[in-house]
Amino acid sequence: MNAPLAPTDRPAGFTVWLTGVKGAGKGVIAKALAAELAHRGLATELLAGGEFRQNISQGLGFSRDDRLVNTRRIGYVAKLLTRNGVAVVTTSISPYRDARDECRQMIGRFVEVYVQAPPGLEEAEGMEELGLTDPYEPPAAPELVIVGKTEAPEVSAHRIVRRLAELGYVPRDGDPDEAIVRAQLKALQDR
Amino acid sequence: MNAPLAPTDRPAGFTVWLTGVKGAGKGVIAKALAAELAHRGLATELLAGGEFRQNISQGLGFSRDDRLVNTRRIGYVAKLLTRNGVAVVTTSISPYRDARDECRQMIGRFVEVYVQAPPGLEEAEGMEELGLTDPYEPPAAPELVIVGKTEAPEVSAHRIVRRLAELGYVPRDGDPDEAIVRAQLKALQDR
Repeated sequence: MNAPLAPTDRPAGFTVWLTGVKGAGKGVIAKALAAELAHRGLATELLAGGEFRQNISQGLGFSRDDRLVNTRRIGYVAKLLTRNGVAVVTTSISPYRDARDECRQMIGRFVEVYVQAPPGLEEAEGMEELGLTDPYEPPAAPELVIVGKTEAPEVSAHRIVRRLAELGYVPRDGDPDEAIVRAQLKALQDR
Repeated sequence: MNAPLAPTDRPAGFTVWLTGVKGAGKGVIAKALAAELAHRGLATELLAGGEFRQNISQGLGFSRDDRLVNTRRIGYVAKLLTRNGVAVVTTSISPYRDARDECRQMIGRFVEVYVQAPPGLEEAEGMEELGLTDPYEPPAAPELVIVGKTEAPEVSAHRIVRRLAELGYVPRDGDPDEAIVRAQLKALQDR
């Protein structure tokens, strides 16, 4: 049995919302980011698109309406976690700008990261596969843009953490330095 | 802007799962319980049946399958919150014993409170209204049984908190004493 739950003044968390077309590389960046945040000792939750659909959005498809509803549900759960001090990472195509902006409003402490497709990705193919009829709407003013699959996910994750520090969501002091990133890269190469 | 999110060793939270037929009085007890837990300084979330359906289970009805899915979704969200140190209070009919036991397994730190209908409640009416075709399955071994609407909700809430302290989920030290309950009752009478 853990210790009893004691009063806390842990401040509100934040949500890093990764958005981008299928195949852009959101998933691996999200995993690396969640790992880095957890490594820093933050209570961290990764709301991965597929797992979320499995647990919360069974029965929803990929029509415009169903995607809107799915995006709002991710936003609702992220809101509950964020206001309880959790560092939340979400990854979903979430193709509609308005729905993402709704989530931004709802969550408050919201960091939108646009994961752009790497050059050469056949976007149309992914759209067809998923039955997407509308085009993906890129963020108008994301906090950060990353081109997916052009660097190790750990490096992208680290860039997001630096942005979080700039925005005041994580302490600057705890920033990993070059050495840590180099060690991460080495671990990657040694896999 | 709040302070940056710092590392935490806040222990896991717990979920108090209120179950019982429609009209038993779960809602008011849940509100009073959430208020008392928040008053004690715990990060607290109330997952109320109606609001949950509105935000997460739009489109689900009241068939056996839909209720099972809805109960599992509440369980999933409660799990995410619980493992991040939140004191979660859920209130839903959640009529199926197996589904509640699934949630118990999934959440781990799970306190089932059976809110029994007060004498004279026309259970059949509620069932018909909600299109319930199966009978409500009472818990086999709940952590606590409360007969709804036979005492002030604040008193029921306090009994749940005492049980939480017995189970080690909240500190015993912080238990409000008789004086506090009497003050709560007075506040009620003064309304």
